[in-house]
Amino acid sequence: MAKTPVLTPRADDFPRWYQDLVNKAELAENGPVRGTMVIRPYGYGLWERMQQELDSRIKAAGASNAYFPLLIPQSYLTKEAEHVEGFAPELAVVTHGGGKELEEPVVVRPTSETIVNDYFAKWVQSYRDLPLLINQWANVVRWELRPRVFLRTTEFLWQEGHTAHATHEDARRYAAHIHRDVYADFMTHVLAMDVLPGRKTARERFAGAINTLTLEGMMGDGKALQLGTSHELGQNFAKAFHTRYLSRDGRQEYVWQTSWGSTTRMIGSLVMMHGDDDGLRIPPRLAPIQAVVVAVKGDDAVLAEVREIGRRLTAAGVRVHVDDRADLPFGRRAVDWELKGVPVRIEVGPRDVASGTAVLVRRIAGSKEPTAIEALPGLLPQVLADDQALLLAQSRERRERRTVEVSTLAEAVAAASTGWARIPWAALGPEGEAELAEQGVSVRCLVAADGSVPERDDQPGNVAVVARAY
Amino acid sequence: MAKTPVLTPRADDFPRWYQDLVNKAELAENGPVRGTMVIRPYGYGLWERMQQELDSRIKAAGASNAYFPLLIPQSYLTKEAEHVEGFAPELAVVTHGGGKELEEPVVVRPTSETIVNDYFAKWVQSYRDLPLLINQWANVVRWELRPRVFLRTTEFLWQEGHTAHATHEDARRYAAHIHRDVYADFMTHVLAMDVLPGRKTARERFAGAINTLTLEGMMGDGKALQLGTSHELGQNFAKAFHTRYLSRDGRQEYVWQTSWGSTTRMIGSLVMMHGDDDGLRIPPRLAPIQAVVVAVKGDDAVLAEVREIGRRLTAAGVRVHVDDRADLPFGRRAVDWELKGVPVRIEVGPRDVASGTAVLVRRIAGSKEPTAIEALPGLLPQVLADDQALLLAQSRERRERRTVEVSTLAEAVAAASTGWARIPWAALGPEGEAELAEQGVSVRCLVAADGSVPERDDQPGNVAVVARAY
Repeated sequence: MAKTPVLTPRADDFPRWYQDLVNKAELAENGPVRGTMVIRPYGYGLWERMQQELDSRIKAAGASNAYFPLLIPQSYLTKEAEHVEGFAPELAVVTHGGGKELEEPVVVRPTSETIVNDYFAKWVQSYRDLPLLINQWANVVRWELRPRVFLRTTEFLWQEGHTAHATHEDARRYAAHIHRDVYADFMTHVLAMDVLPGRKTARERFAGAINTLTLEGMMGDGKALQLGTSHELGQNFAKAFHTRYLSRDGRQEYVWQTSWGSTTRMIGSLVMMHGDDDGLRIPPRLAPIQAVVVAVKGDDAVLAEVREIGRRLTAAGVRVHVDDRADLPFGRRAVDWELKGVPVRIEVGPRDVASGTAVLVRRIAGSKEPTAIEALPGLLPQVLADDQALLLAQSRERRERRTVEVSTLAEAVAAASTGWARIPWAALGPEGEAELAEQGVSVRCLVAADGSVPERDDQPGNVAVVARAY
Repeated sequence: MAKTPVLTPRADDFPRWYQDLVNKAELAENGPVRGTMVIRPYGYGLWERMQQELDSRIKAAGASNAYFPLLIPQSYLTKEAEHVEGFAPELAVVTHGGGKELEEPVVVRPTSETIVNDYFAKWVQSYRDLPLLINQWANVVRWELRPRVFLRTTEFLWQEGHTAHATHEDARRYAAHIHRDVYADFMTHVLAMDVLPGRKTARERFAGAINTLTLEGMMGDGKALQLGTSHELGQNFAKAFHTRYLSRDGRQEYVWQTSWGSTTRMIGSLVMMHGDDDGLRIPPRLAPIQAVVVAVKGDDAVLAEVREIGRRLTAAGVRVHVDDRADLPFGRRAVDWELKGVPVRIEVGPRDVASGTAVLVRRIAGSKEPTAIEALPGLLPQVLADDQALLLAQSRERRERRTVEVSTLAEAVAAASTGWARIPWAALGPEGEAELAEQGVSVRCLVAADGSVPERDDQPGNVAVVARAY
């Protein structure tokens, strides 16, 4: 009897597979207002783990959390010319409050550079107040015409960092520090995602920035997804909001700033990077549930055994869930844990209890082996570490396999139908970039000849990595 | 030389003292849109600690975190008649999105019962899906005409729990469980706040609830502040949104629901309950910084010593901050830590290093004693525990001292000018309650004769606790 697939196979229709998986793994649903989403407990559990891991790295980078208002006077947005141009088409505008029409409409924040600068201008007086390093966890709204859950949503959750520094060099270093030691470190070592660090071209920069650093991930279909950006804002917002400090030698100087963000989009990338035709595969270091212990049947001996295994694994430092819902068919529950991508499943039936063994199912390695119950607490930490490494290796292998070197624009477009192309930036340039854009292909980032992040767009040897993108 | 007070003394002008303290301790500032606030890092640090402590209790009560959209179609609000009546005057309405006027205006959530029920109606099918226990951490907007930072703000942060149960009894028990084991436990044992548990009268109930449980705190000026409420919603929202389940015996039944919330208002209550004329006094179990080690001067020996004390106290499990900003005057820093209410201050000057002693300043006990540096790691955990208990005892003592038993409405009004009054509910009733309201006095809650929370408004022996309130 052939197994009926739970999900549309990726090869048949990747976008439909994605939507199926998001719904059936109970990650999220569409909200009633177009483009919004309801993040269900299992999906939100992934976000909570992301928050914990990112927050500790952000604090280690010296930033403190704070909270700025959701509602921003419309006039603030217009103070920085490029910024308003970038965000005006996406704004949600509140015109009525408390039963009356407002004198000045207010916008729901699409990002907080403007309102943050309004306060930084008050808080920063002297060089002693710098650097000022602030982060906030918040929701933002950007009206989205072609929404897709997690990837492009009218409302999303994120963290946004905002900092002010005395010198250009200090701001530059801090933006790079966040890019490397917060975002890249987290994505590589917790999300097990191979990500490409690079520099955005002028065309792709954040509205109001002088430099945007990005991390680009290759999804299962070969497209790119931008994951976490860190911007140097130069003195653009400082000049618009008069954010100045008294220097050591007694002069009024504008501060140099950065901003940086990472969002619930990362949940979507987790699906599209690691998912397979059976469902999600959650990296063990991220997983809210690292191991699920499943009672195959509801016998007392089985239930006692799964609970005991649960206790022992918890004591061994594993995040465990015990599935003792014996009133639901075992097969259905197994398919569900597969869909939800829990890294390790330990199945215990009546005969297993008698023989002191359980079936150890590894979602990432794809193995299924009888294992002595006694041995599980000693075994699992290594199994989880191995599968974490395997997942990262698989994602790296895919990017390497599906990235090609090209020398012409036509070759780049052709390559972008299945993966990424690398082309010398000198051979492409802003004009070539504009031509690519007409065909739905974009420069994801520039990388230096030695693989590092370039200091300038026109640094000799720069390579443009081009792809179709979500 | 008389000390110039840093704050307006409480006895002179309590509201101004509050505002002074919130600003000078760098907790928060007013936002640009009237009624909104910017929560600064020190204030947000208090909120983060509150979130950690509440979140672990909420999870222990079996609820999972999720996230529902900020934007709700206006029509949803109108589905439950009392609910819309309660919230309509406070709504912020988005009429334009993405550069266009919207076909249906959307409101910024004032609370999420309506949108949550829209999804509960899909997720709940059978009795097996119950109870469904969800919590979300979010921002909400309620247009506020008389705003006061933290206490009444147009936007505030909170957690809102939403649950669905098979029976009235199960919902009733769960609402009481949250009230007692999440909110009262947290406020008593972490915030060191003496809070009075009780039942709201029909007049004061949440819009759409059949019962509201509350915790009322007495502030430093004798007024009351409502802190955390837990509502039984009955089947009101279930009927409006058709949230039904198939029972064990095969019938379609409406679910019974609860909702419950606690907000950033708790930061304001912390100020008004524990603050004194020198500033805040943070309960040690809450404090993001439990002990600050202050270098009186910038000598190398002093700096080395404060850092070493910092390391040892951290190892002893104390949350420590080392203040080695020797370029700022010591007196100014000491006043600032006093203002910020850090429970313990350890001051180290050059002579202290030589003699192996430091000055141990206890913000709550109000003591200041030379102490052997060697002894600090052993001493501090007990000092912090003692001061936690002392703060709670002080708050309890004040409520007992300033609560009087009265038998007439006139006496109740008189008593409410300095504290709380207890009056038999049978002697007051809804008519007396309405008369009190005309004089700005409200029934904060009903308590049973034995001090427990009454099951009904008209339970014989019920006592109404009346006060002026924030």
